[in-house]
Amino acid sequence: MSKKNKKISAGILVIGNEILSGRTIDKNIYFLALWLNNNLGIKVSEVRIVPDVESKIVKNVLSLSKSNDYVLTTGGIGPTHDDITSKSISKAFKKKYIFHKEAYNILQKYYGNKNFNDPRKKMAKMPSGSKLIYNPSSAAPGFMIKNVICLPGVPSILKSMVDNLKNYMSPGLKTHSSTVSVETIESNIAKGLEKIQVRYKKTVDIGSYPFFRLGKIGVSIVIRSSNKIRLQSCHKTIIKLLKKKKT
Amino acid sequence: MSKKNKKISAGILVIGNEILSGRTIDKNIYFLALWLNNNLGIKVSEVRIVPDVESKIVKNVLSLSKSNDYVLTTGGIGPTHDDITSKSISKAFKKKYIFHKEAYNILQKYYGNKNFNDPRKKMAKMPSGSKLIYNPSSAAPGFMIKNVICLPGVPSILKSMVDNLKNYMSPGLKTHSSTVSVETIESNIAKGLEKIQVRYKKTVDIGSYPFFRLGKIGVSIVIRSSNKIRLQSCHKTIIKLLKKKKT
Repeated sequence: MSKKNKKISAGILVIGNEILSGRTIDKNIYFLALWLNNNLGIKVSEVRIVPDVESKIVKNVLSLSKSNDYVLTTGGIGPTHDDITSKSISKAFKKKYIFHKEAYNILQKYYGNKNFNDPRKKMAKMPSGSKLIYNPSSAAPGFMIKNVICLPGVPSILKSMVDNLKNYMSPGLKTHSSTVSVETIESNIAKGLEKIQVRYKKTVDIGSYPFFRLGKIGVSIVIRSSNKIRLQSCHKTIIKLLKKKKT
Repeated sequence: MSKKNKKISAGILVIGNEILSGRTIDKNIYFLALWLNNNLGIKVSEVRIVPDVESKIVKNVLSLSKSNDYVLTTGGIGPTHDDITSKSISKAFKKKYIFHKEAYNILQKYYGNKNFNDPRKKMAKMPSGSKLIYNPSSAAPGFMIKNVICLPGVPSILKSMVDNLKNYMSPGLKTHSSTVSVETIESNIAKGLEKIQVRYKKTVDIGSYPFFRLGKIGVSIVIRSSNKIRLQSCHKTIIKLLKKKKT
């Protein structure tokens, strides 16, 4: 059954000490949020970043899995000791942590028998019953178990894999957006915007974001809705408000 | 009593639809994580990103407040209708959401009586009993209530305010780190690294991060510890491992 007319949500779980320490700047949250909406009409409802600690991964993946249609995890599926995502998620769902035959074969073929050492074999271990997310750039696949999809943390590899997600996730209602930028300060238009938000409460989200660029101060008003007609109508109402403020 | 010899943890709660939609790339998590460790020896244990929805803010601020020494929130303290952090946190801690006298005076002086309109006055409303975090760049202060510190979302303003945090947060044990970069692939050194991690289990965290730059493939091995002597010893052991691999 198609979910095309339904709102579909995803939670993102970023797994990695390097993000929490500030050593690495995450680039996946932003990319996945845009990609999911633009390609599948799926809205990211919540993001969590946790360290490479089994108990934290287990707790947060279960919590996000319960409250969202899908969960995407990034990081922790490589060959080293700090890559514990697959094992932790096996534990979370009480699945055996075992070799996935197809993943094993893919990796064996990629590395060749001679170089297929234990750390590389580890990348074929995942929760029993997982479906593979193929990896065109470095062979080691991601996987899906229940409503959780596990992807690598390296942004270039993650990007090469996302097209495969279309086979595993049901599309929902795409959120359309439109932005009006105006040279003013937020407090000058706050009252008017609030009134418009009340009028469009159920269908359009209005966000107000100050900006400072090239020495100019302004506000970007971003409106978002899955209903294009309401979006256009709200857009026009905001333009009217801004014209009134100018005169 | 000083907590200088203790581990102090902070949770970060990023509040804003614009981050979850992918419209805006967060720049505060990375900055705060580095700043807290380098200046106060405080380790970020967990990050959550939630939308501008009261129930979500309430739930997550309470959860992070319970499991961490401190919580830092970013975003949602401006003048517009979608800025609901102060109100939501008042609700979370069952505090009155009222004008803070000093904040009111600061803002009134900054804008002048004539321009001190309702949206600007709103920025002086916060949970009863809050302490102010001064804002040298745009006047509107942040605040601290219980163990929660609320900062703005605009990175340049947030950056101008963080030095004030030293007055409100007890310093902990600083985490030192050191990085060894080597042109190899993770699976070649994974076994050796794992053995070293087991040996230094209680004192040093070893992370392994593949990189691809200027056409070269390599691994950055990042080691982190609050104990400088153990860190140096672990660093030497890793160098030895890498030399052995080369020969």
